[in-house]
Amino acid sequence: VSLEKGLLDRFDKHIRGKSYATRSKAIADLIQEDLIRKEWSEGNEDVAGAITVVYNHHKRELVNTLLDIQHDYQHLIVSTQHVHLSHEHCLEVIVVKGKPVQVQELAKKLKAGKGVKHGSLTMTTTGK
Amino acid sequence: VSLEKGLLDRFDKHIRGKSYATRSKAIADLIQEDLIRKEWSEGNEDVAGAITVVYNHHKRELVNTLLDIQHDYQHLIVSTQHVHLSHEHCLEVIVVKGKPVQVQELAKKLKAGKGVKHGSLTMTTTGK
Amino acid sequence: VSLEKGLLDRFDKHIRGKSYATRSKAIADLIQEDLIRKEWSEGNEDVAGAITVVYNHHKRELVNTLLDIQHDYQHLIVSTQHVHLSHEHCLEVIVVKGKPVQVQELAKKLKAGKGVKHGSLTMTTTGK
Amino acid sequence: VSLEKGLLDRFDKHIRGKSYATRSKAIADLIQEDLIRKEWSEGNEDVAGAITVVYNHHKRELVNTLLDIQHDYQHLIVSTQHVHLSHEHCLEVIVVKGKPVQVQELAKKLKAGKGVKHGSLTMTTTGK
Repeated sequence: VSLEKGLLDRFDKHIRGKSYATRSKAIADLIQEDLIRKEWSEGNEDVAGAITVVYNHHKRELVNTLLDIQHDYQHLIVSTQHVHLSHEHCLEVIVVKGKPVQVQELAKKLKAGKGVKHGSLTMTTTGK
Repeated sequence: VSLEKGLLDRFDKHIRGKSYATRSKAIADLIQEDLIRKEWSEGNEDVAGAITVVYNHHKRELVNTLLDIQHDYQHLIVSTQHVHLSHEHCLEVIVVKGKPVQVQELAKKLKAGKGVKHGSLTMTTTGK
Repeated sequence: VSLEKGLLDRFDKHIRGKSYATRSKAIADLIQEDLIRKEWSEGNEDVAGAITVVYNHHKRELVNTLLDIQHDYQHLIVSTQHVHLSHEHCLEVIVVKGKPVQVQELAKKLKAGKGVKHGSLTMTTTGK
Repeated sequence: VSLEKGLLDRFDKHIRGKSYATRSKAIADLIQEDLIRKEWSEGNEDVAGAITVVYNHHKRELVNTLLDIQHDYQHLIVSTQHVHLSHEHCLEVIVVKGKPVQVQELAKKLKAGKGVKHGSLTMTTTGK
């Protein structure tokens, strides 16, 4: 594996604060986490999750698009918490439950909305 | 006080199930509650409350109007819980905190939105 | 119908602000609303609703009781919004969907929790 | 950088599906993301966020601990959405707003609660 010197220098500085013995161990951990995320996201077990989106509610088309998408995936959505961050911006946290593939599809569509400033999906266990 | 016979008959039947001794006592209670609501709603103490609205999200103008009103009264709103009831209908429960007069003003504006099927305001103590 | 003079005087003052032609009309309206609430609450149509409770979270037993009741009626509950009003007090708004009789039973149990300062139930249409 | 063969093989298989030209590019991206997360988490700008925890509500001490922690960090918390996943398990999504350091401190304390099955923090922009 060959990496850019600038990137490695910044990474070395970063992991020093995290008390890693070697740089290789730190990279191995990043890869490990990535693989776990992947394996889990392809599983067939129901997951619970939260999709977070921040957007400008003055974009009228966007507001309706986000609402339409949510109604199309209504079977996955438990409820949505809406916080008015500022006069322009809204934060929505959408609690979902269902197959990982479907939950990810919904998250992807919401994040793709033109005017969405940031979107992310957290998947978690249903506790079973 | 003189009341229509039809109304009184139905009321008599209703209060029998509630074991009221007399019809006058039942009416006195309704008046009492109405006066308490009124006194409280005119107070200057902060209240907490929940505004509930049910609406058809396919009415695009309405969706935006409700969101605009909420951003205008942002200082009163803690957060909004949004539930997709059916492919058409949404339930929003808006948690508010502030002076009763302002909270009622916000509730009134939201309920007046063209296309809102039902709206109601519950005011409660902040626990102080 | 015979009512106490003190009560009637206060009521007269109150309805003057609401521009009622007669006191009888105002009382007829209160009775009408009460009957509508009753008829609806006995119906067999699914309703959506919000149960609002304010309580002191330092009462440890209460916190667990409220959570146990909610899990027992899990099939009725969509989700619960919890707001930390002050260092002691919490406001919970529980969104429910189901038969009026069951929804009312749940609300009654939650309100009866020792230490609950205020509880109320708002029932609304599911939009159908 | 030297990595275990088993890990690299699994990673190679994974990135093939993501159409990366080289393994080094894929690792560079993971490092890049990690650095961005770090830089952002040390910033002084207010962030919005969602803390997600899944726990068994039959653990009475835990329920009270989580509530106490939330009241201690009340100034950071907007509101909490509580979903009853099963007869035993609850999902809580806590919407927060504040300095990254404080938000992370709160998330760490909640995740450390004995009996918490999974916890995670998503930080996002406030839109400013």
